[in-house]
Amino acid sequence: MKQVYLDNQSNTQVDRRVIDEMLPYLDENYGNAQSMHSLGAKSKDALEKARMQAADLIGANINEVYFTSCGSESNNLAVKGVAEAYKQKGKHIVVSGIEHFSVLYAAKRLSQGGFEVTYLPVDKYGAVSLDDLKKSLKDNTILVSIQHANTEIGTIQSIGEISKIIKERNILFHTDAVASVGLIPVNVNDLGVDLLTFSGSQFYGPKGAAALYVRKGVKVVPLIDGGIQEGGRRAGTENIPAIVGFGKACEIAKAEMEQNHGKLTHLRDRLIKELPGKIEYMYLNGHPEKRLPNNINFSVEFVEGEGMFLFLDQKGIYVTSGSACASRALKMSHVLTAINVDAAVGQGSILMSVSKYNKDDEIDYVLSEFPPIVQKLRDMSPLYSHFKKTGKRLEAGPGTDYEHNHK
Amino acid sequence: MKQVYLDNQSNTQVDRRVIDEMLPYLDENYGNAQSMHSLGAKSKDALEKARMQAADLIGANINEVYFTSCGSESNNLAVKGVAEAYKQKGKHIVVSGIEHFSVLYAAKRLSQGGFEVTYLPVDKYGAVSLDDLKKSLKDNTILVSIQHANTEIGTIQSIGEISKIIKERNILFHTDAVASVGLIPVNVNDLGVDLLTFSGSQFYGPKGAAALYVRKGVKVVPLIDGGIQEGGRRAGTENIPAIVGFGKACEIAKAEMEQNHGKLTHLRDRLIKELPGKIEYMYLNGHPEKRLPNNINFSVEFVEGEGMFLFLDQKGIYVTSGSACASRALKMSHVLTAINVDAAVGQGSILMSVSKYNKDDEIDYVLSEFPPIVQKLRDMSPLYSHFKKTGKRLEAGPGTDYEHNHK
Repeated sequence: MKQVYLDNQSNTQVDRRVIDEMLPYLDENYGNAQSMHSLGAKSKDALEKARMQAADLIGANINEVYFTSCGSESNNLAVKGVAEAYKQKGKHIVVSGIEHFSVLYAAKRLSQGGFEVTYLPVDKYGAVSLDDLKKSLKDNTILVSIQHANTEIGTIQSIGEISKIIKERNILFHTDAVASVGLIPVNVNDLGVDLLTFSGSQFYGPKGAAALYVRKGVKVVPLIDGGIQEGGRRAGTENIPAIVGFGKACEIAKAEMEQNHGKLTHLRDRLIKELPGKIEYMYLNGHPEKRLPNNINFSVEFVEGEGMFLFLDQKGIYVTSGSACASRALKMSHVLTAINVDAAVGQGSILMSVSKYNKDDEIDYVLSEFPPIVQKLRDMSPLYSHFKKTGKRLEAGPGTDYEHNHK
Repeated sequence: MKQVYLDNQSNTQVDRRVIDEMLPYLDENYGNAQSMHSLGAKSKDALEKARMQAADLIGANINEVYFTSCGSESNNLAVKGVAEAYKQKGKHIVVSGIEHFSVLYAAKRLSQGGFEVTYLPVDKYGAVSLDDLKKSLKDNTILVSIQHANTEIGTIQSIGEISKIIKERNILFHTDAVASVGLIPVNVNDLGVDLLTFSGSQFYGPKGAAALYVRKGVKVVPLIDGGIQEGGRRAGTENIPAIVGFGKACEIAKAEMEQNHGKLTHLRDRLIKELPGKIEYMYLNGHPEKRLPNNINFSVEFVEGEGMFLFLDQKGIYVTSGSACASRALKMSHVLTAINVDAAVGQGSILMSVSKYNKDDEIDYVLSEFPPIVQKLRDMSPLYSHFKKTGKRLEAGPGTDYEHNHK
């Protein structure tokens, strides 16, 4: 059976060149990077080469990049680490309501420890309003964390403008750029951020390595105390194979960004433009233009996401129902809730994300297999048959605006 | 040139069978374990298989094993996570003075946050005294963390007896068993521990995966908040290749423990018994019997560890000077200080640790190359020439007992 992997915002296939770079460090170059003998030195050299590759991708200095084990760790380190380091200065932080759970729950943890957290609302496209941001900042605000782009609905925030507002107030600014780095140009100086999270497993690097950019001079209290690794900011034997792979993925991403961007955009736009012509009552979530090149997120009315997901899976089409991290949690996505998608429609949401490995014939396959699945599910739906008979939607509460974000 | 890797307490070579098990998860099985499609399910199945293998090695239930990225993370999660979860009950914790830095510095971090920390002394072999332990426990003690075995000097603690004392007082007990699990039999119920840290990279597993055993019912506040992974105790996309490798390493360790133990003990004892016959004024650190099967730690008088280290490195013999994690820090080891090794002698300390991949001819090579290196260094040493001329040691302060722990 054909397999079409469209879950690239959960995890990408690892580039073969990345794997080849990693293999010697799984095998013969097994030294601990902190060991001072020749075998340790090989690992240390590999570690610093990867750091250079990672720094280069985001326009940072090599000594501003700290490796971690995953994006969630980087986000926790940024939010909790800054909070702990600057708590004498103030105990208020600001995050957007559509952050990744690792930012939201880190903030929640801080609120249990006496911090005040402001959650910024977003508009129907998922964009943070600059006015809301301005109003949220207080004398005791020490950190703002707003993602660069949203993994689920693909919306790219105006980080440059957001940064100006924050820096005027001399507040630290962290952005979770897991969804964007490697796919679109990201430069920490252009963005004006103090901390930035990025992870290789979203752009053809391996699982197990991510990084936190920390601008020189910014203090961060470690989550993992102990050894002298990562400048004392992250103890633990460095995962050299994964870090080497991450570095290589950064190098490749930079070198091939333009061609990949064109390819992703082409594949994405085919699905975004052609699917609604084949499936009625289907609405794009997220911003139509300020959008990640790989992201397609639709709400499909009169069906449940899980049903679509399972039938697509049977056809070898792998997508995401709900947010990647919550997919086993089976909760309604907090992102769709935040952009005010009606719960009844939001239940029929589906996230597809393309990679450089997807091909046009795979998109053809999706365009041919997906519509009959929706039709089959609708044929079983009492809501749909009621709608077809009466032209009216059941259970539509006051204020429900099914197409609120699709005009 | 011959290469003899004797730095196996920093990191072991990965077993070829472990690498083979990992490769499909680096390559074609790249799904996110939290993705519900078929490719995600493969990762999820692999994750749970590894959890079973890990649980099986330490006699735990499968739902009591939580994967992390490294031993340092597990130790931080245990110490800080328990402290945070039980701080209403009390704010006193007890650790031994020769714990790994990831326990010591986690404890230090807690002490900055209002916790009281008692550091237990150890005897000349590195053993915690049961009397000292008893005296240290107070009504507000919530956690004791004492390592199973010491990475640097190899001493194995009497965890079973220690546990009885702690459990009588209804206090939680964590042991860092990174140095012992996979090498000697470890069973969480026999040891009577509530939390136990273990890591695959010390027994032929890959870097990037470790685990924390948490007895059912024991609460731990996460370090990394966010997703639902690891039962909500450790967010972040699971590093499936490394975890699969860790699981396989656990399986192999269990199946082949007896034969490996015999082999390690043989190699270890050759170095421990034969080296002092070839090098004068050389003293074994750590317990002569209650000792890890792979650990050899000597203080060599009238030389510096760094000198031996560098000359050995030139001969392709890779050892550790000082503790593995501090080797680039160039500090005098806290462990040797704690067992009261004289500073002048302790500077000439060298840790060798064998693995199942070492061979007798490698030990022959060390026995032939090491003594002339020491002689060469001593020939350059004014301390040694003074001693040879006068029979007296320079800079020997009052109370210095050079052979204090070698009788």
